[in-house]
Amino acid sequence: MPIRVTVWNEFRHEKKNPVVAKIYPEGMHQAIGSHLRKASDLQVRTATLDEPEHGLTDELLKSTDVLTWWGHLHHKEVADAVVERVCERVLTGMGLLVLHSGHFSKVFKRLMGTTCNLKWREDENEREIMWVTRPGHPLVAGIDDHFILDHEEMYGEFFDIPEPEQTVMISSFTGSEVFRSLCTWSRGAGRVVYFRPGHETFPTYYNANVLRVIENAVRWAAPSGTSTPPAFGNRKIGWADVQP
Amino acid sequence: MPIRVTVWNEFRHEKKNPVVAKIYPEGMHQAIGSHLRKASDLQVRTATLDEPEHGLTDELLKSTDVLTWWGHLHHKEVADAVVERVCERVLTGMGLLVLHSGHFSKVFKRLMGTTCNLKWREDENEREIMWVTRPGHPLVAGIDDHFILDHEEMYGEFFDIPEPEQTVMISSFTGSEVFRSLCTWSRGAGRVVYFRPGHETFPTYYNANVLRVIENAVRWAAPSGTSTPPAFGNRKIGWADVQP
Amino acid sequence: MPIRVTVWNEFRHEKKNPVVAKIYPEGMHQAIGSHLRKASDLQVRTATLDEPEHGLTDELLKSTDVLTWWGHLHHKEVADAVVERVCERVLTGMGLLVLHSGHFSKVFKRLMGTTCNLKWREDENEREIMWVTRPGHPLVAGIDDHFILDHEEMYGEFFDIPEPEQTVMISSFTGSEVFRSLCTWSRGAGRVVYFRPGHETFPTYYNANVLRVIENAVRWAAPSGTSTPPAFGNRKIGWADVQP
Amino acid sequence: MPIRVTVWNEFRHEKKNPVVAKIYPEGMHQAIGSHLRKASDLQVRTATLDEPEHGLTDELLKSTDVLTWWGHLHHKEVADAVVERVCERVLTGMGLLVLHSGHFSKVFKRLMGTTCNLKWREDENEREIMWVTRPGHPLVAGIDDHFILDHEEMYGEFFDIPEPEQTVMISSFTGSEVFRSLCTWSRGAGRVVYFRPGHETFPTYYNANVLRVIENAVRWAAPSGTSTPPAFGNRKIGWADVQP
Repeated sequence: MPIRVTVWNEFRHEKKNPVVAKIYPEGMHQAIGSHLRKASDLQVRTATLDEPEHGLTDELLKSTDVLTWWGHLHHKEVADAVVERVCERVLTGMGLLVLHSGHFSKVFKRLMGTTCNLKWREDENEREIMWVTRPGHPLVAGIDDHFILDHEEMYGEFFDIPEPEQTVMISSFTGSEVFRSLCTWSRGAGRVVYFRPGHETFPTYYNANVLRVIENAVRWAAPSGTSTPPAFGNRKIGWADVQP
Repeated sequence: MPIRVTVWNEFRHEKKNPVVAKIYPEGMHQAIGSHLRKASDLQVRTATLDEPEHGLTDELLKSTDVLTWWGHLHHKEVADAVVERVCERVLTGMGLLVLHSGHFSKVFKRLMGTTCNLKWREDENEREIMWVTRPGHPLVAGIDDHFILDHEEMYGEFFDIPEPEQTVMISSFTGSEVFRSLCTWSRGAGRVVYFRPGHETFPTYYNANVLRVIENAVRWAAPSGTSTPPAFGNRKIGWADVQP
Repeated sequence: MPIRVTVWNEFRHEKKNPVVAKIYPEGMHQAIGSHLRKASDLQVRTATLDEPEHGLTDELLKSTDVLTWWGHLHHKEVADAVVERVCERVLTGMGLLVLHSGHFSKVFKRLMGTTCNLKWREDENEREIMWVTRPGHPLVAGIDDHFILDHEEMYGEFFDIPEPEQTVMISSFTGSEVFRSLCTWSRGAGRVVYFRPGHETFPTYYNANVLRVIENAVRWAAPSGTSTPPAFGNRKIGWADVQP
Repeated sequence: MPIRVTVWNEFRHEKKNPVVAKIYPEGMHQAIGSHLRKASDLQVRTATLDEPEHGLTDELLKSTDVLTWWGHLHHKEVADAVVERVCERVLTGMGLLVLHSGHFSKVFKRLMGTTCNLKWREDENEREIMWVTRPGHPLVAGIDDHFILDHEEMYGEFFDIPEPEQTVMISSFTGSEVFRSLCTWSRGAGRVVYFRPGHETFPTYYNANVLRVIENAVRWAAPSGTSTPPAFGNRKIGWADVQP
């Protein structure tokens, strides 16, 4: 059975900023989507902010195994009803991969329960080195012990997230800052991954290592088989004695 | 320096249900508060739903080190602005101890990012045994390897919370259900504790073991010394080279 | 590529105790192995204590993706050199599934760093109910929110293990004890799972739910693709600037 | 009641290397000990490798609440019986603070269950910046969001430790490496802290921030009150029904 991926993108920078448009003429979602489509076991769709319901209809979410999320300047325009829908779907098992400035999305902040704030700097000479701190973790399959992004935005600690269940990569930057760059949490029956790189003015989503981690994350966060949804509510004494 | 505790209570059951009123004539907050007041290093105030701003003014929260929370049927009446204020205060370092049916409070659900749902049963013959799974943890100082509550409401798994940072006690019930009953998480600079027992129709908050855990939790969740609040936002290259 | 599983068994009870021999005429390893062999993507071998090097030669371990471990009365007879070899292989990525009384094996104790001690009782009327506390986790794919084992040995908390990375199932017993029954940790590049049930005098390893969890665990603990082994040691300044 | 601290030091570099002797004429343990002795609630003793039983007699360990450990070139000379004794004492509640090259000590490796290996470099121009990733944690009380050590040895990831329960500081180095520098785990009833800085040829243990973290760690890792030691072994049915 294929993994059904939906790549969500704010898709505004690409329309307004010629620098971004040049790098991602069809949008970052297509750069990511094109890579994922090469894998025969991944079924890839895209959705963007300016579509009705931001493209995230109930139907689409119900048939999505993993959602990836890139947003930046227009987090506030994402309708609360859609945010609610996405979060509920995560809790019932959909995987969620939050990318870069998606750290400040309503969806991520709501699932984390924290501000998700951080330090940042845009500098054309900023270099990022991403270090593996959990070799053997499926998220870094095929990744060496570190890789370099010659140009990236800096994100620095303190990154206001709950203690990750797994801290898989940590970055250093030219300015000596560090950042927990690849982290996981569970929320309900769903797995949540945050992956840092992806500033819109750099061609990060063409980098082979970055794409490999994204692909790994999609596979890792996908739900595992058909499970009974969690059951809640009142139970009479004796109910547990009967094998479900 | 004393630890400034605020014991919050919905305080409605005690007014409407004679059974509850008989057990807690002055409210559960006073039962808990009376115990805490015996400790000379704890400065205890109380606050309840029907006070203006539910008693949780900005001034009170700023001068509160640890907030304990008991609510049940009227979670929805807690104003969103107050919920926001409480959560922000947790993120900047206030400890939070959520009790029993407070699992469904807006504050707890928001900090957890999950539904916080569970199974439950009220049965006068239900007995709870609470087992220590982290001996040596400050939350169970003075507690033996288990203790018994002869009458309690049943809460059963799956309890929809994020994987706890520390699972300190697990309960079993007459009906064979189990429940993670004493758990911790961090959110921002604050420590969050959930402690299960405390159904309003039983005298749970007079039980010496329960009171001991509450007192332990208040001490453990209190902020540690005066720390610089986390700093965020844009940073110029070179800033990190200067010792703060 | 198939997952190469080695099912290790002490295989002494089956030879000496007629009750056990009747339930597992070919040994518990064959009951487990027979189930796993039904899956076309699993390549299953077995190994036992009384074989040379306990069947765990360097060659076998190097070609093993996941090792399952059942031992009980003869932990001490497992040679230290073999223990060392197994642990080293885990650290470089082999999955390890420790079953039932394997909690006291040298291998498990060494990887955990604790005594792995617990409370226990053999009673023919002991019933175990196993509850899922992480729905959606691959280890419980296909498992309902709880299942019942009509006859099992009791294991009770405190179970002296490090705080699990993930606590996936918790058991209750007739005697009201609780136990963290399905837990995970990482050690080096390897994933370690502990799964509680499997007392030799009961037909536990024919139970469909138990076998499903074992099969899930084998898949989940298998290494992810071909990764560079972790690198250590002295590094000259500048080495990190070169993309590996 | 005071916290009884024992500061353990290999104390060989100071005797053989004039550079080290000049910085720490009485040994690193005295530099650390002198600082801790300023606190009226800390009772400080020291112990070193060349004393009988390395100074770590059964009597001393039983009356030690927190042990700090610095070793480097002579880990192998620490007698296995003493290692065993120290680990057992940790499991029954003694706090352990492992410093710098103590990462390779027998005690730490045994409690972690991993190789504890890492990358390293000695370079007189290496600068370390330590970043707080858990503001509000007692270990970083009084510490700003980062601090600088002008000269330190580099330690780089992958650091082969189990996923920490809490990752409290992360370092960056001149060479762009990163390292999880302040981490915690629990083992049995004991708390274990690893704190990275402290290369013998630099005056690190006179740095106010480093000393503050050490003092914080001593307080945080100290046992909490008098608790019943964990109980294990056979239990008859019905035992749990009696309140201990």
